[in-house]
Amino acid sequence: MPSQFDPPSGTRDFLAAELERREHAFAVIRSVFGGYGFEPLQTPAFERLEVLMGKYGDEGDKLVFKILRRGEHEASGEADLALRYDLTVPLARVAAAYGSQLPMPYKRYGIGPVWRADRPGKGRFREFVQCDLDILGSASPLADAEVLCAQHDALVALGVRDFTIALNSRQVLAGLLEAYHVRAEIGSRVMTVLDKLDKLRPESVVAELQAIGLGEEAGDIVGALVLPDSAARLRVALKPTEQGTAGLDELDRLLAVVGAELPPGRIAFTPRMVRGLSYYTGPIWEHVAPGIPGSLGGGGRYDHLIAQLGGPDLPATGASLGIERILMLPAPDGPALRRLDVAVAILDDQYATQCYSFAAAARAAGLRSSIYLGASGKLGKQLKWAADQGARWCLLYGNAENEAGAVTVRDMTSGEQTPVLAANVTDYLAAAAAISRD
Amino acid sequence: MPSQFDPPSGTRDFLAAELERREHAFAVIRSVFGGYGFEPLQTPAFERLEVLMGKYGDEGDKLVFKILRRGEHEASGEADLALRYDLTVPLARVAAAYGSQLPMPYKRYGIGPVWRADRPGKGRFREFVQCDLDILGSASPLADAEVLCAQHDALVALGVRDFTIALNSRQVLAGLLEAYHVRAEIGSRVMTVLDKLDKLRPESVVAELQAIGLGEEAGDIVGALVLPDSAARLRVALKPTEQGTAGLDELDRLLAVVGAELPPGRIAFTPRMVRGLSYYTGPIWEHVAPGIPGSLGGGGRYDHLIAQLGGPDLPATGASLGIERILMLPAPDGPALRRLDVAVAILDDQYATQCYSFAAAARAAGLRSSIYLGASGKLGKQLKWAADQGARWCLLYGNAENEAGAVTVRDMTSGEQTPVLAANVTDYLAAAAAISRD
Repeated sequence: MPSQFDPPSGTRDFLAAELERREHAFAVIRSVFGGYGFEPLQTPAFERLEVLMGKYGDEGDKLVFKILRRGEHEASGEADLALRYDLTVPLARVAAAYGSQLPMPYKRYGIGPVWRADRPGKGRFREFVQCDLDILGSASPLADAEVLCAQHDALVALGVRDFTIALNSRQVLAGLLEAYHVRAEIGSRVMTVLDKLDKLRPESVVAELQAIGLGEEAGDIVGALVLPDSAARLRVALKPTEQGTAGLDELDRLLAVVGAELPPGRIAFTPRMVRGLSYYTGPIWEHVAPGIPGSLGGGGRYDHLIAQLGGPDLPATGASLGIERILMLPAPDGPALRRLDVAVAILDDQYATQCYSFAAAARAAGLRSSIYLGASGKLGKQLKWAADQGARWCLLYGNAENEAGAVTVRDMTSGEQTPVLAANVTDYLAAAAAISRD
Repeated sequence: MPSQFDPPSGTRDFLAAELERREHAFAVIRSVFGGYGFEPLQTPAFERLEVLMGKYGDEGDKLVFKILRRGEHEASGEADLALRYDLTVPLARVAAAYGSQLPMPYKRYGIGPVWRADRPGKGRFREFVQCDLDILGSASPLADAEVLCAQHDALVALGVRDFTIALNSRQVLAGLLEAYHVRAEIGSRVMTVLDKLDKLRPESVVAELQAIGLGEEAGDIVGALVLPDSAARLRVALKPTEQGTAGLDELDRLLAVVGAELPPGRIAFTPRMVRGLSYYTGPIWEHVAPGIPGSLGGGGRYDHLIAQLGGPDLPATGASLGIERILMLPAPDGPALRRLDVAVAILDDQYATQCYSFAAAARAAGLRSSIYLGASGKLGKQLKWAADQGARWCLLYGNAENEAGAVTVRDMTSGEQTPVLAANVTDYLAAAAAISRD
């Protein structure tokens, strides 16, 4: 049962261990994207309401978190701002606002939270991180290749090993509809039905196509997408169509470029992979892993979307990593938590200043270090604190040590205790840390 | 004049160079705080409305961004959520929610945006980053010392050199009022007036004190705070008071601990430094730099605030770095932008796949690398792109190179061009990069 102290429905507090895992993943992704020369962009959490509304369809509009006007206008009950719903509409606004200040083509990535008033559920949040990379201003298939490979490399760098990339082309699919003389008016509805091929049986999809007005050809279309020799069938069927031929050429060129870089078998032309969103105009792809429903990420070319979203009319290609889903995969066992290298016990308040300076000297030598700040004077409690912090060493300094001018260095793994001259203790710890660096 | 493409009033878009500078500063701070064993915490951007309201006074409440209810409730014009106004109220909620899961004392830092509907102005934003560190659950002056020193070290690590720390104690100030028999009812108003000592002349402050009900003693109180020998005067004046004596002991102990670690002259007992906020209960401090109005950060002990904010009643001490202000200080000249190490020109589309693989091989060797994705076939344009990206080398591969089985490696600094066998080009670049690592 949620308590008054829980975060709002669909949001999460991230305590240290999970937050550090997430931040580490984001750093890995930034490093991979930076390796391709993508640059970061960060926009505000909220946008003016009119920038967002009307961009996500009726269903999407309902999920936008709107911010009430302030001061004397609050009583109106009206909103003038809204939390961003994705990173793409802000990108379109930035492309419009800073056109000539941006490098062109503009290769940017964005990693940041977005907010959607969806019904919260398992793995579905109202505050979640999106991780997008896009290239605006290049029509080259090499741009698609860079986006696809950067996304691939990020997955690998995140430790995802066992996945494949399904590649298709919106031009190929449009050519297929053209080849079978499907009326343009129902083209996008046909695509929506074909997108169900990964959930429904082919017969059901054929029936749905016939229900929206297709005839005999529904079976041929589905056959060209799902039969084992579908790629070969498609090539034959598309011969007479200009769009289809152009789409196949585009795919072949992209496959030639990325096929040489990706591990064998990683990517395959997959005619049945349609991707639901209507705005794609060229190659489309999805990263899928066995046993994980849905995709780990996807992308494609969307040449007119930026203009539709209020930006300049630029060719564009981009991809999104399903980072929240990836972060829910079981993590490989990492090293145990090490919050501190050196923990310093306080055995006697009169030596607090000396103890503080042992910790400070260890920090100055690059070791994470802190004194004990709890209220207990008991050694057992203080050693438990040191262990909980993952400390390698705990320093003990009481009357006996003070008389001897030495510090007792306790190895927290072995429990072994070594007296070290107080003047030498930092050097001793730094040397031990350098030897056992893990 | 703001355009429809500008971010909302008081918010900012961060393009790459500025964003990277900010992210670098945050990473530096995280590293310093981590060195003391502080752990990170991240809470959602919004809280339930009732968690925030009533915590910031009437003026603060008006500045909270409220989020409209959704769906059928939107028409009510009511809010149920609000963007966080600071990181302290969420910390109090977390302390209440996760009590036993948190290490105790709980040493945490938070770096993240907060939102206030303040009138935007020079250096005043509606979305800005706060950077807080706090220790909950320790009454030890060593906890104050760790917070104060960690904050100090972060400023130094950020490149701020020329600053001092003004230290005082709320117990000392309370003892001073006790010594001069100031009535308890007007104590907090007296503090508010004394806080003006850094802006008004002492005579004006004396007059204001007399206006709120003090007599002759107003002059003595101000004298004990501002005269050159104020620290000595205070010690005499506080002798008869229990609070004052305890406050002086506390300060002396804190000064003994941190004085040994900080550079000489960095910190000084500064009786006239009062800090406006009413919730402090022990030592208080501010980091001030010559020529910069206000402070670069400050902090102090606030033993009952967490309970007042809805959390458990824990002793607490904390500090905040004025990171937005620090980020506006002129940056020391850093190295020039280097977005790419290796830029690969596309002189002839038929070699695009080879060119892509040169870039991919350079990346695999740890160099940032990209092919040219623009539309121009002109070498001059492509070299300008390589220079704009800060690339060290530009690779050229056209017909002549293809025939020779070589790549032309152009040093972007000297303009010198070297033919390198295609099979060796990655090794060549990796070796050159290792030699000239800058």
